[in-house]
Amino acid sequence: MTHPTDKRDPGTPPGDASLSEVALITALSREFGAPPAAVVLGIGDDCAALALDGPDYLLLTVDTLVEGVHFDLAYTSLDQLGWKSLAVNVSDIAAMGGEPRYALLSLGWPPDRDRCLALQFAAGLARAAREYGVAVIGGDTVAAPEGLVITVTLTGQVPAARMLRRAGARPGDLIFVTGPLGEAAAGLEILRRGAKLAPDLQEPLIAAHLTPRPHLAAGRLLAREALATALIDTSDGVATDLYHVCRASGVGALIPAAAVPVSPRVQAAAPALGVSALNLALTGGEDYLLLFTAAPEMAARLDQAFARAGLAQPLPLGRIVPGDRVLLSTPAGDVDISGRGYDHFRLDLTAEDL
Amino acid sequence: MTHPTDKRDPGTPPGDASLSEVALITALSREFGAPPAAVVLGIGDDCAALALDGPDYLLLTVDTLVEGVHFDLAYTSLDQLGWKSLAVNVSDIAAMGGEPRYALLSLGWPPDRDRCLALQFAAGLARAAREYGVAVIGGDTVAAPEGLVITVTLTGQVPAARMLRRAGARPGDLIFVTGPLGEAAAGLEILRRGAKLAPDLQEPLIAAHLTPRPHLAAGRLLAREALATALIDTSDGVATDLYHVCRASGVGALIPAAAVPVSPRVQAAAPALGVSALNLALTGGEDYLLLFTAAPEMAARLDQAFARAGLAQPLPLGRIVPGDRVLLSTPAGDVDISGRGYDHFRLDLTAEDL
Repeated sequence: MTHPTDKRDPGTPPGDASLSEVALITALSREFGAPPAAVVLGIGDDCAALALDGPDYLLLTVDTLVEGVHFDLAYTSLDQLGWKSLAVNVSDIAAMGGEPRYALLSLGWPPDRDRCLALQFAAGLARAAREYGVAVIGGDTVAAPEGLVITVTLTGQVPAARMLRRAGARPGDLIFVTGPLGEAAAGLEILRRGAKLAPDLQEPLIAAHLTPRPHLAAGRLLAREALATALIDTSDGVATDLYHVCRASGVGALIPAAAVPVSPRVQAAAPALGVSALNLALTGGEDYLLLFTAAPEMAARLDQAFARAGLAQPLPLGRIVPGDRVLLSTPAGDVDISGRGYDHFRLDLTAEDL
Repeated sequence: MTHPTDKRDPGTPPGDASLSEVALITALSREFGAPPAAVVLGIGDDCAALALDGPDYLLLTVDTLVEGVHFDLAYTSLDQLGWKSLAVNVSDIAAMGGEPRYALLSLGWPPDRDRCLALQFAAGLARAAREYGVAVIGGDTVAAPEGLVITVTLTGQVPAARMLRRAGARPGDLIFVTGPLGEAAAGLEILRRGAKLAPDLQEPLIAAHLTPRPHLAAGRLLAREALATALIDTSDGVATDLYHVCRASGVGALIPAAAVPVSPRVQAAAPALGVSALNLALTGGEDYLLLFTAAPEMAARLDQAFARAGLAQPLPLGRIVPGDRVLLSTPAGDVDISGRGYDHFRLDLTAEDL
């Protein structure tokens, strides 16, 4: 929830997206006033967190998906859409180190579309619910004449002393991601263009876009073993997600271009798609991995903990530095990629710069 | 939330609305499986209720408002819409006897509409939040090219032993509403037709539609003093809302047509609007009063408790009987109005029947 820059928003003026959306959310926050003491985290992180009774914080997150903006039923099945509608919220809970618990579904359905198809959507959502231990406990069904509008609200819980957030990164910390970058964005490119690559190359990329698998176990591990200083999920592309961490933490970040953990599948697919694999990796959204920062002395413990848990090793992305920008370090010098989305970035940085 | 019959849904085939929407929600519930033990109330009441830590249940509700379906910006200001977006959810919490607490706002905004206008919406929502003691703690902003889509998720709390629900009405119980019926529906008729009635008549009716004031204090009183056996808010029209209570409780209801507490303002406005005041009162939606049932021996205590709290006396509507229908008792015989919405009802029951 609370995507201060939603690069999927097609109506945002180029170059102005981040500022105006951030300005809107800031203005909204001001309008809503200071929250009461029980609100540990309000507007501006992946979830809101409440200190109610008991040792855990209650986490709350909401995400809306709009037909034609966030998905296209020409290449997304309703079953896949149902899965993804819950998965993107589970990823927000993972980004706090929490456990997802209860979901409400608000389903806006076009009156002229067969309601029985809604059961295909529900089947996909129910499969994700079983996978991630979520109970769907209520909701709302409304008419949405212009296309599907899906809002999922998800609760979660996390031990109060263990919750991770965007704030907390310190200069010197190492930056990691929990998987290779760019696969979901490459999958979307393949679908949009109707590209035909080798099946064993394109199928995993398409699946990364259509049926993301949030890194819940990794988030839980980072929180439970106090391994990270800051945590976020990669929904908007790491150039933007890392910038959120930097702003919340009051720091900057430096990413060596040569060391960016671009997915080998993205490397392989990029030439056929005529796109830069590095651009996809840094600015492609919806990977739904976790990005975290950790003190350098934690590096060995991190590897051990992930190995013990049977999880893939976290991949180094760069390091936190003083300042307030996300800089990509290239042979031609440092490039400011703070909060950059795919289309914008492409205008400024071509392969020759690297 | 969970409106099994949403009479505002313009695409629902007449005569089939209730069944198909109920069938959809039943099918969705089946898809999502049996909830865990902590879920006290799941799909099918005004709120979901969770037994977490502490003596209170956590209440959760969500409502979505779609431009062109639930509101028309030709006669609704954004400020009023902001108020109403929260108020309708507060009404769901009132319908459990609970206190509203924390809200999440998911705001779908057309990319070509000035974002500064969103602050007018936020101002109205913030005013309702202050009025009802709600903190807005997070949300999501997305592009919604075809018109505003607003989803508010609201939490609340209620002492576990005191929560009221739709189930619980028993044959012999009296049925009450917490205010006169039909004002919101009359206000909507005035707005739709651009009718010009006397200002002191039409302004309160329009306000009832645009800026409803949920009966939170009455719900709290009914729960705290254990005065009611079943409780719901009147969002879909009492013919439908009472039918929800009957189905949840396994009972029927009998309403004497002559005793329906039609708002005197609605009586006064109906001739000029060319509509039946009784029809508006029974089937007009969005009054956002409370409808409750109570044992007959409670009648005196009810009046005293409401008077002590400075609240208007509850108005008798009828009584609970064995069976499974909502019957309107008229000189011409009983008419089954179970779950009937305005348009449908009008087809079957004319003034001559009364």
